[in-house]
Amino acid sequence: MHLGRASGRARIVRKLSHARWNPCGFRHGRPADPRLRGTPGRLGVDRRPGDRERGSRGCRGGDLAPDARRRRRRAAARSGGDGHPREPAAMSGIVHLVGAGPGDPGLLTVRAVELIAAADVILYDRLIPEHALDGARADAELIYVGKEGGGPQMPQEEINRLLLEHAGAGRRVVRLKGGDPFVFGRGGEEALVLRAAGHPVEVVPGVTAGVAAPAYAGIPVTHRDLASGVAFVTGHEDPAKPESALDWAALARFPGTLVFYMGVRALPRIAERLVAEGRPTSQPVAVIERGTLPGQRTVLATLADVAEKAAGIRAPAV
Amino acid sequence: MHLGRASGRARIVRKLSHARWNPCGFRHGRPADPRLRGTPGRLGVDRRPGDRERGSRGCRGGDLAPDARRRRRRAAARSGGDGHPREPAAMSGIVHLVGAGPGDPGLLTVRAVELIAAADVILYDRLIPEHALDGARADAELIYVGKEGGGPQMPQEEINRLLLEHAGAGRRVVRLKGGDPFVFGRGGEEALVLRAAGHPVEVVPGVTAGVAAPAYAGIPVTHRDLASGVAFVTGHEDPAKPESALDWAALARFPGTLVFYMGVRALPRIAERLVAEGRPTSQPVAVIERGTLPGQRTVLATLADVAEKAAGIRAPAV
Repeated sequence: MHLGRASGRARIVRKLSHARWNPCGFRHGRPADPRLRGTPGRLGVDRRPGDRERGSRGCRGGDLAPDARRRRRRAAARSGGDGHPREPAAMSGIVHLVGAGPGDPGLLTVRAVELIAAADVILYDRLIPEHALDGARADAELIYVGKEGGGPQMPQEEINRLLLEHAGAGRRVVRLKGGDPFVFGRGGEEALVLRAAGHPVEVVPGVTAGVAAPAYAGIPVTHRDLASGVAFVTGHEDPAKPESALDWAALARFPGTLVFYMGVRALPRIAERLVAEGRPTSQPVAVIERGTLPGQRTVLATLADVAEKAAGIRAPAV
Repeated sequence: MHLGRASGRARIVRKLSHARWNPCGFRHGRPADPRLRGTPGRLGVDRRPGDRERGSRGCRGGDLAPDARRRRRRAAARSGGDGHPREPAAMSGIVHLVGAGPGDPGLLTVRAVELIAAADVILYDRLIPEHALDGARADAELIYVGKEGGGPQMPQEEINRLLLEHAGAGRRVVRLKGGDPFVFGRGGEEALVLRAAGHPVEVVPGVTAGVAAPAYAGIPVTHRDLASGVAFVTGHEDPAKPESALDWAALARFPGTLVFYMGVRALPRIAERLVAEGRPTSQPVAVIERGTLPGQRTVLATLADVAEKAAGIRAPAV
């Protein structure tokens, strides 16, 4: 793997070195936190004394029987009343940056389902799958921090503040984001803020819409005869950047499929720039609205006519 | 989304048009096959009469209680003895091309777990998570079709033949592949072969190693200040292609992170070409061996010294 621009990136990599980064110990196949002892890949979480009687497998969380809930409350009372056992390790908060996938609830990962079921607090985005939070604990605090394109939104600073507040209070926080937290998810920024404050962070990758939406539309993003690679590019650049921050000449020459995230409003400009830099106007383009969701809609066009054909497409789309 | 080379890609998109492609009807939020009626996102699969008594949620599959197994066998006997109900729709085979994620069993998707539990036949690769098949039915046929780098391997033609044979026999086939089936997974080829023979195909995207391995190493592949995009490129090109099939000048100019899959043996050549085309030798490089697995190892270097520093790294790596 080869990284982006030199200096800043090197700094980030140093800050987020592997050993400090993944405190749940995926590397050793077993999480370090005593409340998360489930064998990876099985669906048991939050195995406190008393829960084990319910059987060694099965999904915990929203479907807990009332007697199990009572047992948990009693266990919580024994351990100090705040739901945390008395071991010092369990008293420090942790933030799980969790990718919820592109929207189809079936594309949540097993680990995401486990962590949602175990969380004390869940900060969730707008674009998470329907019913993704059904498995959360009845007493979990669910906080909507979504950003609507064009509408009112919670500033990133406020999200960071909430993350720090809850992690600082010793809670198990799940930050649930659409797609993957590190693919245009600003997960990197949130992780840095939390690490800087000394809070452990675990990143749980998710299925990213740039792969999944085309797949649901029947389009492989790579094919050994046709596309040696695939590039994911943000179509919604940081407004603070100058217009030309993207090197369109290099993008146009990329030897494979280009997937633009959040590029709906910029679509005419994107197509125009790619053609200006040499991509043939006959190249096929797919615009996929609500990828992997029940209302998925795909417009097939070429670079020449995509702006016109896809005029009715609304975000989210790739 | 903007696709790769024009003519061949347009042909594939036509062949795999959306309506014919996803016969399980994710678009409508409910699978068409009568044997897979689980609400997406819940972990119930294979809900034949009698199973529903076990409760409306819970993981089915390898953890079936003996009495549930007996009920299933009786239901199978009622339906004709081959495990398939007598509805005509259920008699036609189906192939699910399923991404198993990068290796951590927790990164399997809920849908992958469901389909593994429901499959009559599973054709699986070498790089699937440990214990991924634990949830398969006791009577499911498990066929290893893995390819070892440099070792003996099953030709793709033989895999295609097996897929056609089992789908043609009316079975529910899961083709389980490491990562995502459409990101360097040759899933596109397998899908085309199956569609050409008239078999329904469902694609279940997975978490791809190019995102997950860096995340586990603490490296966001995009960051709004540092990398506007990320490109996945195969480092192990089709040997039939001329050496220079990749446009190295365009790759070197790509405005973001470059992730090479299967590039371990070609690493010195990759670094050399990128520098020759203008990437600064000081750019940071991470080579991640066994990403997301217990033995994950990360080498941090620069383009100048990565070939030397990463000499001990073995595949799989990004």
